Amino acid sequence: MENRQVVIDSLPDGKLKEDNYRLERTTIPVPADGEVLCRTLVLTIGAGTRAGLQGSASYAGAPKTNIVMNGTGVAGVEASLDDDFAPGDLVVCASGWQDYSVHKANQLTRVSDDIDPAHYLGVLGTNGLTAYFGLLEIGQPQSGNTVVVSAAAGSVGHLVGQIAKLKGCRTIGITSTPEKCHLLVDKVGYDVAISHRSSDFRTELKVACPDGIDVYFDNTGGDILGSALFRMNEHGRIVCCGVVSQYDTSSPAGGPRGIPGLLVNKRIRMEGFLVFDYADRYEAARSEIKSWITSGQLVPLSDEIDGLEQAPAAFVNLLAGGNIGTRIIRVAQ
Amino acid sequence: MENRQVVIDSLPDGKLKEDNYRLERTTIPVPADGEVLCRTLVLTIGAGTRAGLQGSASYAGAPKTNIVMNGTGVAGVEASLDDDFAPGDLVVCASGWQDYSVHKANQLTRVSDDIDPAHYLGVLGTNGLTAYFGLLEIGQPQSGNTVVVSAAAGSVGHLVGQIAKLKGCRTIGITSTPEKCHLLVDKVGYDVAISHRSSDFRTELKVACPDGIDVYFDNTGGDILGSALFRMNEHGRIVCCGVVSQYDTSSPAGGPRGIPGLLVNKRIRMEGFLVFDYADRYEAARSEIKSWITSGQLVPLSDEIDGLEQAPAAFVNLLAGGNIGTRIIRVAQ
Repeated sequence: MENRQVVIDSLPDGKLKEDNYRLERTTIPVPADGEVLCRTLVLTIGAGTRAGLQGSASYAGAPKTNIVMNGTGVAGVEASLDDDFAPGDLVVCASGWQDYSVHKANQLTRVSDDIDPAHYLGVLGTNGLTAYFGLLEIGQPQSGNTVVVSAAAGSVGHLVGQIAKLKGCRTIGITSTPEKCHLLVDKVGYDVAISHRSSDFRTELKVACPDGIDVYFDNTGGDILGSALFRMNEHGRIVCCGVVSQYDTSSPAGGPRGIPGLLVNKRIRMEGFLVFDYADRYEAARSEIKSWITSGQLVPLSDEIDGLEQAPAAFVNLLAGGNIGTRIIRVAQ
Repeated sequence: MENRQVVIDSLPDGKLKEDNYRLERTTIPVPADGEVLCRTLVLTIGAGTRAGLQGSASYAGAPKTNIVMNGTGVAGVEASLDDDFAPGDLVVCASGWQDYSVHKANQLTRVSDDIDPAHYLGVLGTNGLTAYFGLLEIGQPQSGNTVVVSAAAGSVGHLVGQIAKLKGCRTIGITSTPEKCHLLVDKVGYDVAISHRSSDFRTELKVACPDGIDVYFDNTGGDILGSALFRMNEHGRIVCCGVVSQYDTSSPAGGPRGIPGLLVNKRIRMEGFLVFDYADRYEAARSEIKSWITSGQLVPLSDEIDGLEQAPAAFVNLLAGGNIGTRIIRVAQ
């Protein structure tokens, strides 16, 4: 038995490439007293972890090579030297991109096995909670509001659109291709979807929002943020959730024109948030989200790829905008 | 008897100049039924009116020539064809830059004559209310916070610093010259003052804020905003009050780098506001501000210039950063 690991071989110089990673095979780690050996079942790949690979400001700390790529997984307990866990338990952990990992018991979150474990990496995990708290707490959507979401087909964005509909809003999704636009309307329930790669993007955004924008949920930053800013209504809210347009580069662009002038004239609130600040409310949020899934009001999408060795390619493709919903790597059954 | 008027002769092409204005002499207007003839006593000149002279987005509407320059004044009632006003009453009105103006009675705000009328254009007028609501409502300063103010010697800024001190904050004022820095510390009570024209400005700002910035009250935009943004603490608040750095130009600069990335990582709230949204709370605010003046906790500064014909030069100089406190033109005694 061996432990396959995807290791950061080099830091990206410009765009991330598959060969920034290498696959290693080592022995399975052995838990010490109070520790638990976990076997990764599913992993999630999120655009946010790209920031950890470069030197610029990031909440993830300074980048390193020759370490296992970080990532969150759902794992089965294989062996436990802690009284709280037993083989067969299911946990969420910072597994990294590998088959086996050892954790202190207090770093594991037990989850129930009555639902596909992949949900704990999507709608019931950080992505879903980010959509939930970002939209509801920072965006403060009111019934009848126009809500625009960038990276609308992404792991967070496709849930933001659905939660906004639940709250009685009109929703416009911004994505990257005509195919994804169709999916956003047909499968995710956006009222309108437009592609930011269209040469008429600004006009299409204007036409899609005849009453202006009340809430803009920004997953991208950059030019899309700049375009949305110019269509914001008075007292509009811009939820700054992520900057996927800037992760995959070593020279972040300047901010949009119109800051701060437009913020003043239109009394716009622009606010960044990290979901971890809401940790003490996760349980209540998960229970509300589960009720929406059960009632069919919320339909989480995931985008599964089989095999740990596919993770680097899946990450590069994700940064290029290839995914719908939460990107999941199925590591073991 | 004649009515002197300062008229907009041409729209500025680049920086505003004195000869964008001309002085005209006309007859004194005659009030109709329900109207009041007012004689301007004092006028205020504010950087915000510069935006009305150019074509870019402004809450003041499209620019025009051959009209009297707009501005707020305190005036004495000379003649009244309305039952609510009588000669000798004191009012705040949209006098414009002229000796005499006629207004509908419902467009006048009566003020008491127990205090220098110029205060109604400063600490008890829009400037003071802007400082009060912007700092307290948007900035939400907590005792012990570090509060940084740009254009700190200005009509709004010199009051923001004092109100922040009243709330137990440490205050840093940013201004344009060493002379103004001394004044900010000696006369206005800032803990530290620094000049944004210093070649070491960024370092000086860092040294002045060893614990980071909790509230940044932005009157300028541009590079000063960019510098402050990089020193903001987690959950910091940026009060977007004005963009004096951008008023006197026809090509507004791009926004600061770090937007939206830093807003996300540090969960910063950046929010624009206009004081008019708080109109229903003006009276309560004025009464609290008056109590601070009476107790000596707030010392409003004004910067008076004698004579209506000096208004254009005073405005050009104001935009170049020449004033301390509220700039007042004394038109008549």
